[in-house]
This record gives sequence, C-alpha cells and structure tokens, in this order.
Amino acid sequence: MSEQLLSSRNLAFELYEVLDAEALTQRPRFAEHNRETFDAALGTARTIAEKYFAPHNRKGDEHEPRYVDGRAELIAEVKPAVEAFLEAGFLNANRDFDVGGMQLPSLVSQACFAHFQAANAGTTAYPFLTMGAANLIESFGSDEQKRLFLQPMIEGRYFGTMALTEPHAGSSLADIRTRAEPAGDGSYRLKGNKIFISGGDHELSQNIVHMVLAKLPDAPPGVKGISLFIVPKYLVNDDGSLGARNDVLLAGLFHKMGWRGTTSTALNFGDNGQCVGYLVGKPHQGLACMFQMMNEARIGVGMGAVMLGYAGYLYSLDYARQRPQGRQVDNKDPNSPAVPIIEHADVRRMLLAQKAYVEGAFDLGLYAARLFDDTHSAPDEAARAQAQELLDLLTPIVKSWPSTFCLKANELAIQILGGHGYTREYPVEQYYRDNRLNPIHEGTEGIQSLDLLGRKLAQNGGAGLKQLIRLIATTAERASHHPNLDALRQPLEQLVNRLQAVTLALLGDLAQGRVAGALANSALYLKVFGHCVIGWRWLEQAIYAELGLMKGVDVDRDFYCGKLQAARYFLTWEVPGCHTELALLEARDDTCLGMQEGWF
Amino acid sequence: MSEQLLSSRNLAFELYEVLDAEALTQRPRFAEHNRETFDAALGTARTIAEKYFAPHNRKGDEHEPRYVDGRAELIAEVKPAVEAFLEAGFLNANRDFDVGGMQLPSLVSQACFAHFQAANAGTTAYPFLTMGAANLIESFGSDEQKRLFLQPMIEGRYFGTMALTEPHAGSSLADIRTRAEPAGDGSYRLKGNKIFISGGDHELSQNIVHMVLAKLPDAPPGVKGISLFIVPKYLVNDDGSLGARNDVLLAGLFHKMGWRGTTSTALNFGDNGQCVGYLVGKPHQGLACMFQMMNEARIGVGMGAVMLGYAGYLYSLDYARQRPQGRQVDNKDPNSPAVPIIEHADVRRMLLAQKAYVEGAFDLGLYAARLFDDTHSAPDEAARAQAQELLDLLTPIVKSWPSTFCLKANELAIQILGGHGYTREYPVEQYYRDNRLNPIHEGTEGIQSLDLLGRKLAQNGGAGLKQLIRLIATTAERASHHPNLDALRQPLEQLVNRLQAVTLALLGDLAQGRVAGALANSALYLKVFGHCVIGWRWLEQAIYAELGLMKGVDVDRDFYCGKLQAARYFLTWEVPGCHTELALLEARDDTCLGMQEGWF
Repeated sequence: MSEQLLSSRNLAFELYEVLDAEALTQRPRFAEHNRETFDAALGTARTIAEKYFAPHNRKGDEHEPRYVDGRAELIAEVKPAVEAFLEAGFLNANRDFDVGGMQLPSLVSQACFAHFQAANAGTTAYPFLTMGAANLIESFGSDEQKRLFLQPMIEGRYFGTMALTEPHAGSSLADIRTRAEPAGDGSYRLKGNKIFISGGDHELSQNIVHMVLAKLPDAPPGVKGISLFIVPKYLVNDDGSLGARNDVLLAGLFHKMGWRGTTSTALNFGDNGQCVGYLVGKPHQGLACMFQMMNEARIGVGMGAVMLGYAGYLYSLDYARQRPQGRQVDNKDPNSPAVPIIEHADVRRMLLAQKAYVEGAFDLGLYAARLFDDTHSAPDEAARAQAQELLDLLTPIVKSWPSTFCLKANELAIQILGGHGYTREYPVEQYYRDNRLNPIHEGTEGIQSLDLLGRKLAQNGGAGLKQLIRLIATTAERASHHPNLDALRQPLEQLVNRLQAVTLALLGDLAQGRVAGALANSALYLKVFGHCVIGWRWLEQAIYAELGLMKGVDVDRDFYCGKLQAARYFLTWEVPGCHTELALLEARDDTCLGMQEGWF
Repeated sequence: MSEQLLSSRNLAFELYEVLDAEALTQRPRFAEHNRETFDAALGTARTIAEKYFAPHNRKGDEHEPRYVDGRAELIAEVKPAVEAFLEAGFLNANRDFDVGGMQLPSLVSQACFAHFQAANAGTTAYPFLTMGAANLIESFGSDEQKRLFLQPMIEGRYFGTMALTEPHAGSSLADIRTRAEPAGDGSYRLKGNKIFISGGDHELSQNIVHMVLAKLPDAPPGVKGISLFIVPKYLVNDDGSLGARNDVLLAGLFHKMGWRGTTSTALNFGDNGQCVGYLVGKPHQGLACMFQMMNEARIGVGMGAVMLGYAGYLYSLDYARQRPQGRQVDNKDPNSPAVPIIEHADVRRMLLAQKAYVEGAFDLGLYAARLFDDTHSAPDEAARAQAQELLDLLTPIVKSWPSTFCLKANELAIQILGGHGYTREYPVEQYYRDNRLNPIHEGTEGIQSLDLLGRKLAQNGGAGLKQLIRLIATTAERASHHPNLDALRQPLEQLVNRLQAVTLALLGDLAQGRVAGALANSALYLKVFGHCVIGWRWLEQAIYAELGLMKGVDVDRDFYCGKLQAARYFLTWEVPGCHTELALLEARDDTCLGMQEGWF
C-alpha cells in the first residue's frame, strides 16, 4: 500500500521547492528552525495521524456521538488520539517557545495538520476548534480572561467552540436573537439558542469555552450590534478551579450525513436565566473579532476539504494500480490477461482530474499559510500589509474552491472503485460524505461568492487584486522562458485578461449602485476567479517541475512529468471552460435574477 | 406542502402536450384506453406511492437489510408496499388484458412508476427487478419455463433478480468464471460467485428467480461464450409446487452508502455441487438476451435518477419558499424583515439549475418510453424499426445523463437547505446518497460512453444518428417560427453542427483502426452528446410552452413562463460550455491517454 494521507514527495516539493520554507528560517521568529526541525514535526504528525487518528475514522462514522443523560458520548478512541495530538505540542504549534509552543511557521504547521485532516476529519475538529477559540481570546481577551480561559486551553485542559448560528437566522448573522444583559458585576447573563455548534459537548476536556455571539440591550440593529462573549460550560473560580455547571444546556444532537465523528449540537443558553458570560473585546465589535477566527477557520476548512480529496485520490490511485479488469479498447483478444484499470484512458482521466484538483488546492492552502506567516513575520511593514491584503482577497477561494472541487475529486474516487466504492467496506464513500459539509459550514459557497465580489475585491482600493494580477503576470513571464510551458501559460493569460475586464466592469456597476445585477451571478464569478487562482498556482508548480527536470535527477523524473501533466490537464481542460461563465458575466445575464418565484 | 413526488402539472404537460399520449389510443393495442384511464392509473400510482412507499423511505435507509441465519431480513413496511403495488396491477402494467395486465403504453406506465421511484428507491427495486426478469423469460424462455417461472412472477408469487457481476470481473463480463455443466436431464449444475446482486435474498415472495450469466464447458472465450440460466432459490416441481432449497447460498450483504432499502447480496452458486439451473435461449447467446433486460434496466435507472433529483428539487423549492433568511443584496436596512430565501438570486440559480436538469431528463425518459411503445405498436414496420434504432442510440444517454446531472441537482438541493440539508433530519441528503449509485450500476458512465461512441453511433450504418439529427433539425425549424426562441435555438444549432463534424471525424478514426485515440476522451463525447439531446428536448418543451402561452389561459401562464426560463437556462448557460469539450475532441487531445502510470 502506498502512502495513505498525502504524498511526502509532493509535500517536500511544496515546502522546499515551490514555497521555500527554508527561507523562513532567515527570519528572527523562525531562526531556531531548519529543514530538519520542520521534517521532525512533519514526521511526528504523520506518525500520530497514522497511529491514533486513521484507525478509528470508520468507527467514528459508524458510531456517531450519542445523547445520553444530557451529555454527548463519544467513542473511546477519540480521547487518546486528541491526547497524543496535545502531547506532541501541535495545539501550540505556532505559539512562542517561551509559553511551551513550537514556534513553527504556519506553512509548516498547516502541513502537519494536513495529516490529521486526511486521517480523520471528525476527531481532528476538536483540537482545531480549540485552537481557533484560543487564538480569539489571545487577540481580544483581557488579561484576566487569558489567565482563566486561554491558559488552560493552551495546556489542553479546556476545549473551545464557536457559537454563531441560530435556528431562525442561518447565515444571516445580522438577525441573531441571543441576548446578553449586564449582571452588574462585570459579567453578563445570556439567553438564546444556537444550532450546529461543533464540539458543543463532550468529555474530552475539563471544561468547554464557548465563544458566543449575542446582542447587548443597547445594540444597534444588524451586524453592527453583535458582541462576543466567553461562555464556559463550567464556571471558573478566581483561583482557576472549576465551579458550578453554567446554564448551558445540551438541547440535542444533529445527525449528519457525514463528518459524524464531530458532535454537532443544539445548545440552549440561559434556559434558567443563569447563563454567565464575559464580554470579549468592545461592545458591538463581536463580528469583527469573530471574523479573525472565521478567516482562520475558513483556511482550515479549505485545507480539510483538500485533505479529504487527497486521501480519496491516493486510495483510488492505489486501487487502480492493483485491480485488474478488462483490456485495452483496441485489444479484442479475450484470452489476453486483464490489465490494471489504471491502463484505461477514462480511469486515467479520473485520476488526473483528482490529482489536478487536490494538488492544485493543496498548493493554494499552503501558499495561504505562507502568506499568513508573512502577515506577521515578513521583514518590513509594507510586506506584512501586502501579505494581509492578498490573504484577505484569497480567503474566499481558499475556503470555497477545495470545498467544491475536492468534493468532485471524491466523487471520482468512488467512480474508480465502482460498486465497491459505493459500499461502506471501502473508505472513499465516507470521504465523499464528510467532504459534503465543506461547501456549507463556515460560510456557504454563496456567502463566499458575495464576500469576494461584493467586499474583498474593492477592499483597500483593490490593492489585493492588483497585487494578485501582478503576481500572475510575473509567473507568466517566468513561464515564458520555458517553451514547453507555452500551451499551459496561454490559456491562463487569456483567462486573466478577460477576468480583469469583467471585474472592472462589475466593480463599476457596484460603485454606481447596480448592486442586484452585479451580484446576481456571483457564483459564476467565484468559479472563474477560483480557476484563475488555481491555474496560476499550477503554472507555478509547472515552472518548478521544469526546473526540477533540468536538474536531471533520474529518480525525480516521473514525479515532475506527473506535475507537468496535471498542470496541462488543469490549464487546458479546465481553464478554457471559464469563458462560458465569463460571457454570461459580461452580458450581465439575468436568467436567474429574472426567474420569478411563481414560475417554479 | 406542495407536491412531493413530481409536479402533476408538468406530468400533464409531458403526456398531453409534448408527447401526445392520447394519440397512442388510436393504435389497436391501446384502443380501449383514453385520457381518463391513463389518469386513473396515474392517480392510483400516486396514491399508493404516497401511502405505502414514501412513509418508510427514511426507515428503510436507517434499518438496512440484516443478515440473519443465512437470510436477509427487511423492515416490515416493505411487504405491504410491494403488495399494494402488485394488487394495483403495476407489475403487469404493460401486459395484455387477457393475462390480467393493464395493457398500458410504456409512456404511461413509466409515468406511473416514476411516482414510486421518487417515493422510495429502495423498496421500488424489488418489483422492478421482477419485471425485468419476467420480461426476459417471456422473450427467450421455453413454454415450460414460462409455465413454471414466468406465470408465478406475473402473479406476484415469485420475484426476480439479474446476476451478472463477479468479484474479479466487475464490468468486464467477458471474464466471468461461473460455470454451468449439463446434468444429463436437460438441466445444468452451476458453480460460481456473484456480487452486488440486488434483491438477491428476501422473504417478500415464495421464491426468487435468479437470471444468471454463466459459461458452458464448450464456451468460446469472451462475451461470445456467455449463456443465460434460470436459477431458482427453491426448486419448482412439475406441478408448480415448491421443492427443496436450491444450492444458492447468501454469502453476505453489502453495506452501501445509500439505496440501503434494497438488499445487495453476494451469492454463491453450487458450493455443494447441487445448484440446478435451466438454460434460457440458445447456448452462448446469453449476453444478447441479457441486453434486452439491461436496456430496459438502463431506462429504469435513468428514470430512477431523474425521480430522486425531482423529489429533491421539489423539497428544496418548498423549503426556499417557506424559509425566511437575510435580505436582498441591495437592501442594507437591518430592520426590514427577512425575505424567503427564494428571493436570493443565487438560490434561484440553484433551483433553476435543478429544474432544468430534472425536467429535461424527465422529458427524455418519457420520450424514450414513447419510443419503446413505437418499437412494437407503431402502425408500420419501418416506423417500428426506426424507433428501435433511435432508442438504441439514446439508451446510453437516457441512463447516464440523469445519473450525472440529477445527482448534481441533489447536491444543489442540499446546498439550498444549508446545514439542515446536511442532516438526516431532512430528506435531501438521502436522495443524494441514493442517487450516487446510478452512475455506477447497470453500466458505469465509462461503459455508457464506450457503448455510445464505440458501438451505438455506427450501428445500422448510423441510421439512429441520422434520424436524431433530422429530428433536431425539424425541432429547430419549428422553433424558428417563434422569434422569442431564437436565443434558445441558436446555441443548440451551433452545438449540433460542431458535434456532427466531430462525430464523423471520430467514426473515421475508428474505421481506420485508430481506436485508442478515438475512444480516449469518450467521457467528453458522452457529456456533449447528452447535452445536445437534452438541449433538443428543452427546445421542444419551449415550443410547447410558447404554444401554451398563445392559448392565453391565465392559470397556465406562470407554468409556461417557468418552462421558458428553464429552457433558457439550459440552452444559454449549459449548452455553450460544450464547446470546450468539443475543442478537446477535435484536437484528439491526448492529455489523459498520454499520462503514464508511473507519473501519478
């Protein structure tokens, strides 16, 4: 059996050829690291993922959390897996050495996390949610809040959640109804109901710290009146010891199609009027705070989608190599032996498409992680700001593109296994079910498309967009020195040029108040923009593959040829299709906008 | 709650406007029928589907068949549902009045069946498999076989299966290993293992008649050496009474991602050397016989895929109308009330795409059923032969197109429901899981693409293809009298012209022995050909919608406007995208063919 979680050769290509992780060790923050320390962390992640996470992936699916006496009960295998993750220090992979962290760049820690995401999406969610909640308190909490809640999270004693969604409001956070009344002692009393709260109950940790959005009595209407609160499952005494159970009730569990290992809960806050919460940051500024967590979460969701796609790709690749069936289409001799199905052109198509999707998205996810590193460790302030602008622009793509296209990869993995792929005796159907959540949570595809077209493009005077276009032009220029890459570069250049024109036109419409028309086909825009970004990343990979081939190392030849063929697949099979969507965008096509409710 | 299974207005449109079911009553075979008898049958189907099939659809998913003491145990609700289906006469919907049948045209019986397929795919499979097996014995069985096996199937006492697939061979029927030795008394002894046999065990009927493919001792190699056998679960005495249990062992059950209500079995034939079978038709001609059943089954699979898509569409449409959330994108007043999500352009896009997929495929499925009627009841022999030629050509599309695009519809239905759609508390995730089987069974998409490009196109000197192109040209000519339809007609004409040229070129390659290159991108060809056929059917629907609007009946106005908008969506959003695939086909692109195994 070949590698199951991800290809370590491809990971090394990304880290040490394309994204130059070693250059980060020139920066003071990462000066004590080197390729050896990076590889040691990656090796540990892989070992723990294979030993503690992968083995119960199916069991977690078959035995989803149960509601027992007001508690959520998980299978026994989750706790030791999470503990191994904690003990290895991954919860604090990016924190300073002096608080016990590993002080790794995000580029490397995301690559570590990728192993867990491929091995077991359900179990991985618990520490991931905790990291997000901890980062939020670290950024916006008071010293007291850090002492009482952050510190035990860093130590792995408390876990975290993010509690945004309410039954009536869904994606529309402006309409949340959870209220927070000042109690007079600096704390608040919350009252409201939240749904789809992942990790909302379990007994993996001593306490659970819910990061809850709610409205103060004097809140202005809409998103400008949302505040952020810490609401612990158990109250915490001033000396850090646990107090009474807080008035947070597990109202029930949701039963999902996939991703069943992660408890999805309905939580009632303040049914008995006694739900204690603590304001984080300033009143009415909660959404801005939460967006930090959401942006991190969105990159995490994107990488999670990539890794489910990656695991399915590797499984179906291995299957296609092992499984003999049928003959070449031009061989009519029934006495000749059956060939492995990877010999069939259509199976190769399905493998190549998967490779193009998952390795393209994997590159983008790691590129985003490296941008995140730049936002705080780049040598000068201007570079840090630039990185932030580009990361902001790319976040909707980093989240949504893998959610759509790595799900498509999972669909292809099932198809390669045929009837077997459709049974629960093989893992690919679970990857497909698990991955179907990703286009929904942390902002649906529709929300991402509006975020991109209606907000991110014009942010900072379009600085992120201009930067991206410059970067793509630079890549194309470098590619132009490799005649082999002409056929790959040209479709990307055609796409970028036309996309740029469409973008300016749509931004013009928005500026002139033609909002409904400009945003009507935001889904098409999201797809084209995403293909442009992934096409760019594939051209980058192709350049490094060409450089690699020029080194003439025999053992690497096949790897680089595969990279070039996958780049060719994406840039010549997938990218040209975007002109259909561009034509519709150019025409401000109103087919969907003009459809009347009564006509359905 | 609006209609849950299918829109009866749309069904009436198809039957009485587009496909003119009443014209069939001019033919002697259907002379005793009229619109009232058709509607009575449809009403009965709907009532039984709603009363007996729909209510246990979720339960059948949650409580899949269990292996107990060598038997498959189903939930109790399946039997009364199947009995209601039998008692209403649907098993013999197409059989002659004088054997107790309803003598309905297939057009109407398929429309009846559609209700059951939408209500409960799992339970519906049992009578459907029985119909297929019965038709096979009716066509190819001896009088004795008809007396002993067909008659009790017609009476609903015996059920049937088709047993083709073997563990090592999958889609490659040439390589099956099940053997049949003559026993000297005219019967045979079978030995071999079959997998994925739907309905392979249950206690819904007194007996199960397996239609089994196996090889005789003197069989030539490959598909020319396959014979067809009746292998009953219980032997049948000459007087029709049941004898001993035959040597057919239920080796185990498969546990599927969806479609769980239908038992999927592994069957061992002849573990004890005592498996009695009876040859059906001539030796070595089994595959030709089985293809009759497979062609029927493929149309059934296509319609099944449509109806899962249809049920999801109607559910998500109803949800989008009821569910208030958010505001119009150009409304920034947070105090304004939330609007039903159907008001959001992107939700309308997802609904319109579903409508275009499911109503386009529904039309094609019924069109195929009407062609089937023509193959045996058209007034003259030439018309019957023509219908058969066209039906043969269209069968891969009727099977594969809904399997891909109505699954996509189910994906969109989930997306509209958001987080709720991902939970098992709502039905759309089950439709998605159920529908994922359809691109796999009864010939995968890959098999269908090779069947179309490598076999069906050139069959009968390309007569089916020429006929199709003529029919599309006639539709386009009729559409040209409606200036409103110009923008819909032109993309179809452009597609057909280019597709015709590509088709001739590929057939030329095949004729000159460049087989591997010509078939390498068969998946692209299948997609484009399918879009061409569905685009044609949408233009037909649009013409009837225009004619309907001209009648000026107020109550129908919305319905026809919706039809025109869905036709516009399909022909202007989906059809133009095919030029990307056409360009790759024209170039004989070898990206996938050229990918080497070692490069992955």
